Amino acid sequence: MKNKNLYNYILTIADNSLILAQRLGELCGHGPNLETDIALTNISLDLLGQTRSYYQYAAKISGEGKTEDDIAFLRIEREYKNCLLVEQPNTHFGYVIGRQFLFDVYHLMLMEKLQNSPDETLAAIAKKGIKEVSYHKRFSSDWVKRLGDGTEESNTKMQEAIDDLWRCTDELFFMTDAENAMVKEGIGIDVSSFKGKYYKEVSEVLKEATLTIPENKYFTKGGKEGIHTEHMGYILADLQYMQRTYPNMTW
Amino acid sequence: MKNKNLYNYILTIADNSLILAQRLGELCGHGPNLETDIALTNISLDLLGQTRSYYQYAAKISGEGKTEDDIAFLRIEREYKNCLLVEQPNTHFGYVIGRQFLFDVYHLMLMEKLQNSPDETLAAIAKKGIKEVSYHKRFSSDWVKRLGDGTEESNTKMQEAIDDLWRCTDELFFMTDAENAMVKEGIGIDVSSFKGKYYKEVSEVLKEATLTIPENKYFTKGGKEGIHTEHMGYILADLQYMQRTYPNMTW
Repeated sequence: MKNKNLYNYILTIADNSLILAQRLGELCGHGPNLETDIALTNISLDLLGQTRSYYQYAAKISGEGKTEDDIAFLRIEREYKNCLLVEQPNTHFGYVIGRQFLFDVYHLMLMEKLQNSPDETLAAIAKKGIKEVSYHKRFSSDWVKRLGDGTEESNTKMQEAIDDLWRCTDELFFMTDAENAMVKEGIGIDVSSFKGKYYKEVSEVLKEATLTIPENKYFTKGGKEGIHTEHMGYILADLQYMQRTYPNMTW
Repeated sequence: MKNKNLYNYILTIADNSLILAQRLGELCGHGPNLETDIALTNISLDLLGQTRSYYQYAAKISGEGKTEDDIAFLRIEREYKNCLLVEQPNTHFGYVIGRQFLFDVYHLMLMEKLQNSPDETLAAIAKKGIKEVSYHKRFSSDWVKRLGDGTEESNTKMQEAIDDLWRCTDELFFMTDAENAMVKEGIGIDVSSFKGKYYKEVSEVLKEATLTIPENKYFTKGGKEGIHTEHMGYILADLQYMQRTYPNMTW
């Protein structure tokens, strides 16, 4: 493939949206109340829409006759480049909100940078996505505060989720080879550049939510390089079932 | 297919073992303690072993060049003939035990009849299975009593599981076309013939476990005719992942 680095770079961004969308999709019809159920499903659909734009672009530049569906459904686990954070399970509502919040803050910062990329397609997708992702962040931040500053039980559960998911935050700022190569070409974003800003903003929300900011010394990574947690296989089994069972199926 | 009825009859028996084995396999490494974890995994392996014998026989008589793996992994949902009971989720340990117990009592009664079938292969599989299934029943009955006659919490949870799973018991005795045809040929077992005996034995154990015998008026069925609950798709997604992802894979 000629544009291998750009191709991989697109997946590094897009796979986060795909896998998080899939996780949120699992909750469709299982939200704690109707409004939240619909909100989470809408976020899932926003992310899927973004994913499609990215994959269409990746399919086009791959020059291998791939379609967006091939990229979404027909890769093996090691070829997915999403971070470990987004594949974490929907353990309880606190986890769903915590995972969303920790991702949204990062996601919006990335989109804000990416909209100025000289790669016009990536810039356009980012620009279009900012409105959606801003809403996602507002939704998840509000819920972090509501649960953190709510009852004793909701505070405990929200804290538990943040404490547990915190170990996945460092990976967001780990630079893969594809990211480094694209930064060098002036197209990609140096995500490590807004790491400080990220933790500052996250910490402010947690503080407002009367939650304790975790002080982990150990973080996990691997997803961005295709080394996933046990959860990933189950996600892909569900996600790929239709395409795998009926190969070459089209709608 | 020449032996369509026999083929379907074998699946009606074998698919119960396959799907229950898969459900138990999900628990491997997640049992409440080491002994129970290993016991449940052993039961899963016993059932898988039986499944293999049945599928090898089905593959042979199908005359279509099928292998046991084709039958296990490459059918679509509607082609699986297991009852709804065995596909119910591992909600909590009470459910795992309740599902196992309600199935084991039935399973042993079926094997005891089947060992006298004039179909020598089925008779041999049943004969070999009786020792295993007797152990399964002893294990699950003991746990029903231990949890039912244990703490207030264990009693509540065991009762909840039995109350919930009870609706799936009637289907065990529903006679499908394949079963009726094989009874007519003198090979198959009329499962409806031991329905009374089944409820009597189950009730005795529940009584000893200080549990209340449910008095459902409504029962669900469909699995034996390929109409499954929502759970089945997820089970198959996990079960079939490897064969679907790497078609024609052999070990």
